[in-house]
Amino acid sequence: MTRPHDPVDYGEYLQLQKLLSSQAPKSLEAGAPAHDEMLFIVVHQAYELWFKQILHELDSVMALFHRDSVDERNVGVAVARLERIVEIQKVLLDQLRVLETMTPLDFLEFRNLLIPASGFQSVQFRLIENRLGLRRNARAPLERSPASAKISDGQIGALRRSEDEPSLFDLVERWLERTPFLELPGFQFWEQYGAAVARMLSADRATIEANPALSPAERGPQLRELDSTAASFAAVLDEAAHEKLRAAGERRLSHRATRAALFIHLYRDQPILHLPFRLLRTLVDVDELLASWRYRHALMVHRMIGTKIGTGGSSGHHYLLSTVERNKVFADLFNLSTFLISRSALPVLPEDLERRLGFYFPRA
Amino acid sequence: MTRPHDPVDYGEYLQLQKLLSSQAPKSLEAGAPAHDEMLFIVVHQAYELWFKQILHELDSVMALFHRDSVDERNVGVAVARLERIVEIQKVLLDQLRVLETMTPLDFLEFRNLLIPASGFQSVQFRLIENRLGLRRNARAPLERSPASAKISDGQIGALRRSEDEPSLFDLVERWLERTPFLELPGFQFWEQYGAAVARMLSADRATIEANPALSPAERGPQLRELDSTAASFAAVLDEAAHEKLRAAGERRLSHRATRAALFIHLYRDQPILHLPFRLLRTLVDVDELLASWRYRHALMVHRMIGTKIGTGGSSGHHYLLSTVERNKVFADLFNLSTFLISRSALPVLPEDLERRLGFYFPRA
Amino acid sequence: MTRPHDPVDYGEYLQLQKLLSSQAPKSLEAGAPAHDEMLFIVVHQAYELWFKQILHELDSVMALFHRDSVDERNVGVAVARLERIVEIQKVLLDQLRVLETMTPLDFLEFRNLLIPASGFQSVQFRLIENRLGLRRNARAPLERSPASAKISDGQIGALRRSEDEPSLFDLVERWLERTPFLELPGFQFWEQYGAAVARMLSADRATIEANPALSPAERGPQLRELDSTAASFAAVLDEAAHEKLRAAGERRLSHRATRAALFIHLYRDQPILHLPFRLLRTLVDVDELLASWRYRHALMVHRMIGTKIGTGGSSGHHYLLSTVERNKVFADLFNLSTFLISRSALPVLPEDLERRLGFYFPRA
Amino acid sequence: MTRPHDPVDYGEYLQLQKLLSSQAPKSLEAGAPAHDEMLFIVVHQAYELWFKQILHELDSVMALFHRDSVDERNVGVAVARLERIVEIQKVLLDQLRVLETMTPLDFLEFRNLLIPASGFQSVQFRLIENRLGLRRNARAPLERSPASAKISDGQIGALRRSEDEPSLFDLVERWLERTPFLELPGFQFWEQYGAAVARMLSADRATIEANPALSPAERGPQLRELDSTAASFAAVLDEAAHEKLRAAGERRLSHRATRAALFIHLYRDQPILHLPFRLLRTLVDVDELLASWRYRHALMVHRMIGTKIGTGGSSGHHYLLSTVERNKVFADLFNLSTFLISRSALPVLPEDLERRLGFYFPRA
Repeated sequence: MTRPHDPVDYGEYLQLQKLLSSQAPKSLEAGAPAHDEMLFIVVHQAYELWFKQILHELDSVMALFHRDSVDERNVGVAVARLERIVEIQKVLLDQLRVLETMTPLDFLEFRNLLIPASGFQSVQFRLIENRLGLRRNARAPLERSPASAKISDGQIGALRRSEDEPSLFDLVERWLERTPFLELPGFQFWEQYGAAVARMLSADRATIEANPALSPAERGPQLRELDSTAASFAAVLDEAAHEKLRAAGERRLSHRATRAALFIHLYRDQPILHLPFRLLRTLVDVDELLASWRYRHALMVHRMIGTKIGTGGSSGHHYLLSTVERNKVFADLFNLSTFLISRSALPVLPEDLERRLGFYFPRA
Repeated sequence: MTRPHDPVDYGEYLQLQKLLSSQAPKSLEAGAPAHDEMLFIVVHQAYELWFKQILHELDSVMALFHRDSVDERNVGVAVARLERIVEIQKVLLDQLRVLETMTPLDFLEFRNLLIPASGFQSVQFRLIENRLGLRRNARAPLERSPASAKISDGQIGALRRSEDEPSLFDLVERWLERTPFLELPGFQFWEQYGAAVARMLSADRATIEANPALSPAERGPQLRELDSTAASFAAVLDEAAHEKLRAAGERRLSHRATRAALFIHLYRDQPILHLPFRLLRTLVDVDELLASWRYRHALMVHRMIGTKIGTGGSSGHHYLLSTVERNKVFADLFNLSTFLISRSALPVLPEDLERRLGFYFPRA
Repeated sequence: MTRPHDPVDYGEYLQLQKLLSSQAPKSLEAGAPAHDEMLFIVVHQAYELWFKQILHELDSVMALFHRDSVDERNVGVAVARLERIVEIQKVLLDQLRVLETMTPLDFLEFRNLLIPASGFQSVQFRLIENRLGLRRNARAPLERSPASAKISDGQIGALRRSEDEPSLFDLVERWLERTPFLELPGFQFWEQYGAAVARMLSADRATIEANPALSPAERGPQLRELDSTAASFAAVLDEAAHEKLRAAGERRLSHRATRAALFIHLYRDQPILHLPFRLLRTLVDVDELLASWRYRHALMVHRMIGTKIGTGGSSGHHYLLSTVERNKVFADLFNLSTFLISRSALPVLPEDLERRLGFYFPRA
Repeated sequence: MTRPHDPVDYGEYLQLQKLLSSQAPKSLEAGAPAHDEMLFIVVHQAYELWFKQILHELDSVMALFHRDSVDERNVGVAVARLERIVEIQKVLLDQLRVLETMTPLDFLEFRNLLIPASGFQSVQFRLIENRLGLRRNARAPLERSPASAKISDGQIGALRRSEDEPSLFDLVERWLERTPFLELPGFQFWEQYGAAVARMLSADRATIEANPALSPAERGPQLRELDSTAASFAAVLDEAAHEKLRAAGERRLSHRATRAALFIHLYRDQPILHLPFRLLRTLVDVDELLASWRYRHALMVHRMIGTKIGTGGSSGHHYLLSTVERNKVFADLFNLSTFLISRSALPVLPEDLERRLGFYFPRA
């Protein structure tokens, strides 16, 4: 188990000499040291360390999903690693609170010395977004951004590849499409689900129409809203309708993968679906926390510089805010709750199927 | 100090018999108990308890500011109570995590039994918004909302009064307008500030024009952005320009109060301005946390019911999201960072004024 | 699905009139209103609301485990409900931050009016501790505490029953003892595990003896420490040794249940063990958070009154601190990490067993 | 304001090439890559980055207090920087949650490769403890710890100096001793305070003696407890009694500094005492968070390796737990609440003094 090895030293193992000599404030160099520039450097270096770790986890998860068949045990490993990314993302958010202890007056003291450096130039952050599956056209390419000159050819190559290779979104979509239990001889699941939906919608319609507290002027909008909900359901039940929404950019996930994801959500209490459900939910969490980070980061930039130009020359705050929602990758998974119906209205699974969704082992 | 009194009992003091008998799940009444309805009731009751406490603090803060002259000691008390509201708001956000342990499938089990009750009908929440200073037209009046019939005349009266009486926004605005140190004989503060701003903007312009990494196509937007920043500064320096923005709904705070708030931000290191600065910052925190709560609450509603109708008959999620930014009361304070300039560029205060911004006591 | 029902009103549903009229500050009654007493009441009422919810969840989890055979699906439900308790416990901790905004000076203003009421008199909190499995002798009985006179006979009865009936600890212990896969014909699991442990301990011994940085004076204690670790392992492998520790109060869980829990920890990656593992881990989390709450609560009491007497007449702080560790119920589960060995040293499961620890369904 | 400078690049500014090439897992080197070792390295490197930042802040605060006279404006700066340390400490705690996503099984996979490296060898962490004022004898010196051989002479020198030079504790003690307003002609503050204390203690005694719910067996301990509280008060009022406690190691702060700190706590509402109060409270927060970190870190080590030996050869967990309380530096400040009395019982300050504790500026 243990081979003899040279005694390991804490400082050498962590390469602390290198690590702790990597902070060189520009304001010091310029002869007018600004106390808070050290914080600015350290917090951004801590971000980059964590970005490296996120990429380490993402790469390993993608490798697990790259095969044609994903071992059940690996779904558990993938969930654990994605949950670790979630915990790291929470630390990234917490770190903003430290940065917020820097006042705008203190930041303005060295802001000009950093021009045109900008967080937009973080290659690792772009790699994370690309690996997750951010679409290329959702964002200005790095090549067109100011001061990208210093990014090495190797990094540009890595970014290109991360755009061209299958993303985590693509891999999960294929895995969902391969789910075996969607079509079972003798079990008309989607027909039964469709009937339950129809009953629910018609009950909702009756509720609105019978509500004595509603004026006619209020009833109209609510009924129109209900129509639009009905249209959403229709797309789950009808592949052609789904494809139309997909072509219009309102859906991204394929019809078959959407159905598999919905089935997993509806029957998440079945033992075999437990880990797949947590996988989908954790992907949504990763997406949400990335959105929160973009939002809180945009607020902080605004608190720091108001509407003045950022160090990268951009008008940071507005651009950043505009990316919060647009850059979500797994929005279709988040929106699945639209298609849930109450547990008591769920089609009852055939006994044979239910048994097969359990464990081999006789129950204790 | 202590007068003799009857021994107090924990349960009696907290009126636990009343408190713990106030949970009556509709699903139990309907004969089909849904386990999670208890959580739904308890979490909303906890919200209402905390709303009562927030109103208790807000009322006391407003009473402190209601006078023509606010004792310095009271600024400290007001800050402490607003900071308590901030801590309560964090608990309100944390409570959402508990509610999120309820799955949509479990919620759908009793959702229909609650129609048309809705969180929009919380009288206390509306009172909080009104006391802070939410404008009447920012929101659909309760009277027009479904099922307001059960709100008592007393509550309607309290709501009306909270709309008509001066809000915390109004009281703070007046207090800022009374700040004494804005016009001092022989100190042309705003002239000097204006000159510093002009120097900063012209340096920014030079930076953009000299940036070799910018293509002409990129330079244009950045220069236009700079023009708009310059226009913002102009409004601080020129009352007429400010009033124009105010008439257009882009500013709410008066010109004089804005200037006072900016002065406080710029010279926050002066001992006498320390508490006023914390007051303004805490108001912004209260506003931000209320916005966060609206946002996270809207996300949760969406996660729970998707695009289906809410229990109040409304399409909750979209309406809620639309209110997040619009309902901010102290946005002008948040935006003050736009007008900050670096500490080293600040006009130096006359020695006499600086002395008067300190303490009486000889320094130790 | 939905039967027609009377329109539900938000305020009526939550019984807000009752709830919001249950705050009666003693200082108001005494004619010297202390602003902060309202906070004191509200925060304790919020605690009691959450205690009710925790009991609601605990009761349902215990009902699931009360049967001789626990359906696999129910393990998932139990985990979800225990995880909800964990989230509630986090809110309880967060609420302390609100209470900490009350200064000692402000508390002293009404402390004397509350004598001898005390949080020790919370019947619900004691019920929670008893249901989890706190041993009766770990704590002073309520009957002997000051001012228990006001506790109703019904409550005393409920407390007695909660002490006499099987606790969650007892139920989980029995469930673990029933685990089927511990003894399998032809697979000498514990022999193989014991051999792996022996190899690890002898490697550790060699490491200590060969460490050139250790002086003889340092080597001694480390070797003694290793001997004690070896003794711990021995108790897992030998039932008689385990029972001796149990008799001495150093273990609580039966030998058979301990082995089952250890097997679950060692092979947690097997799909069938995934939920059982999370169940055990969540029980430890519940225990840890209760300990954290006791600790932080004791600190807060100390911050509030120092070494002065508490409102219940007790010297709160020291007593509270002494209960933090002693009152842990699932310490044996927490300590399981002592018996883990590295994954690569784990006995390889027979192929047949590994297959049976997976799912019925052919892998995709 | 801005001198022209070479365009700054994000990656160069943060020295990312150096930073992101500093992770060299031993398991990779050994030919048996353990996925989680990267996390282990990254999290410890993030700790060391933050330790550097904490030292940056501590050094600047100590420089502010090193002078014979501390400018009031600098008290504000010191508070802001200590509050930043508090926010960093919260991130350090949050980072533990990331580390906790590593299971013991995964850690055991590479633990042996790290022997005898250990977090105890962090030079920066020791520097932080020493700068705060941890007493030398509270801890095993680094020189006697295993494998300190690799610590450079420069680092050993820095550690020695940090033990010999005045610590933050020493500097704050001197600053408190210089507080001017403790002895005022014609105001017998401590006599009046002593009288108020005597009244409070005698009321407490009467309360205990008159409590009908107490049996004689319960009354005894409570009265003894009260006697010990009375003895604590006596030491504040009598320098000789205080010095006796100090000699016995039960107090650390000088009598004069203790009185100044108590006065600041009692009259914290006075504007001039606002920042001094926040300074003292923030020091206690720093101390508390360091204790929390030690505690949670000890728990995590236990969860990770149980009672097995740590990588540094020590029996980590028990040693760590034993240091949690013992290593508190500002315990005397934390314990001040013992000496508070209710606001209404406080001696009224002479009008002249109260005026001098306010601001120069006429009130608005």
